[in-house]
Amino acid sequence: MNQAPIIVLVRPQLGENIGKAARAMLNFGLTEMRIVNPRDGWPNPSAGPAAAGADIVLERARIFDTLAEATADVSHIYATTVRKRGVTKAVLTPEAAANEIVHAQGRSAILFGAERSGLETDEVAVARSIITVPINPEFGSLNLAQAVILCAYEWSKHQGLESPPKTELDPPAPQEELDGMIDQLFGLLDQRNFFYPPERTNATRLTLRNLLTKPGWNSLELRTLRGVWSSFRDRRS
Amino acid sequence: MNQAPIIVLVRPQLGENIGKAARAMLNFGLTEMRIVNPRDGWPNPSAGPAAAGADIVLERARIFDTLAEATADVSHIYATTVRKRGVTKAVLTPEAAANEIVHAQGRSAILFGAERSGLETDEVAVARSIITVPINPEFGSLNLAQAVILCAYEWSKHQGLESPPKTELDPPAPQEELDGMIDQLFGLLDQRNFFYPPERTNATRLTLRNLLTKPGWNSLELRTLRGVWSSFRDRRS
Repeated sequence: MNQAPIIVLVRPQLGENIGKAARAMLNFGLTEMRIVNPRDGWPNPSAGPAAAGADIVLERARIFDTLAEATADVSHIYATTVRKRGVTKAVLTPEAAANEIVHAQGRSAILFGAERSGLETDEVAVARSIITVPINPEFGSLNLAQAVILCAYEWSKHQGLESPPKTELDPPAPQEELDGMIDQLFGLLDQRNFFYPPERTNATRLTLRNLLTKPGWNSLELRTLRGVWSSFRDRRS
Repeated sequence: MNQAPIIVLVRPQLGENIGKAARAMLNFGLTEMRIVNPRDGWPNPSAGPAAAGADIVLERARIFDTLAEATADVSHIYATTVRKRGVTKAVLTPEAAANEIVHAQGRSAILFGAERSGLETDEVAVARSIITVPINPEFGSLNLAQAVILCAYEWSKHQGLESPPKTELDPPAPQEELDGMIDQLFGLLDQRNFFYPPERTNATRLTLRNLLTKPGWNSLELRTLRGVWSSFRDRRS
């Protein structure tokens, strides 16, 4: 349950792109990369620098001669494609695929084709489902690492990472503190005849109260504002 | 309704990264880029090749000297950060932010800081909310274009969807109206030596700016507040 998918790069061309894919993976907690028949052999000296610190992914990457060997122990194979194909397979978004993967029994793998040409038809054929990123129909230009990062990102949403760092937001202050701040302001404004003429006083006070209630300021913020009001006290008094 | 967010690159360093950000945007249908004070000037000959065909984004990109000018017409500003900060703002995932943006009235903008350093504290201060990508706590290494693509991708998910009923709330005023209100208050407080001593001035101004940014006041509310500030003008002057 909730096993991380294996990222399978099929015939990748540039070591730099392998490194970028590793970086994309590790950002979202994926660590298992398999590489089928890399054009320039392995290890590739261009991969490390592009990984920007995600060396562990490259060090653990396993190299295979064929896609069949790379996926021999995998139960659920997804093939990423951008082009529409005549294949009769389910086409999923990265989001839907991630949702399947985290609930699947057995290992899952996501296949990514060569940078320029993508996966071949016979490579797509080994997959039960296709992942296609819904993209601008007038400009589709996702590179390998970007396709990887979107799949990894969607998977990560199901992990503990989901919650962003807790916000330290203080709750709005109790009403009496808000009222105290408003009363202080109203007192000052009274001195300045802000509420003149009398027939407008209530409406103006209501408008101000509404807009000062809207923020939900916390206690500290209210104290800050009271300091501001205090600085406006008439100096003659 | 459902307006596309503006992508604001603040002090980007490399033209190549500006190009990659443009490519990331257009993949998911975003076309409006604003650039604040690019380190190497503009146009930048490295941007075009990296855009990989997303030239229209670069051609239409608008350059600004300051973040204030770049966001003057924006009602909802989001700041992307990776580090935890002591700021008291809501922290959203790209997904949650996209959900807000598509339902917002008024333009939205997402700020991205310089490649190496990210957004400065005073740049984050102009935003009402923070976007943080939940990332591997042991390896966080998102580059600029990757951060852009995740935000654009999440926004794009809402594009074929039905728009929900409009809310009747006035949208937050454009940023320049908020800035005008804040500047007026700061001017008055300066006269009152509110910001004394000098070594506390910046911190106090930042605190006030943050709490005055939080409400998302509309234009009418801001005019009301400016009336309040005016009543505090020194009578002797």
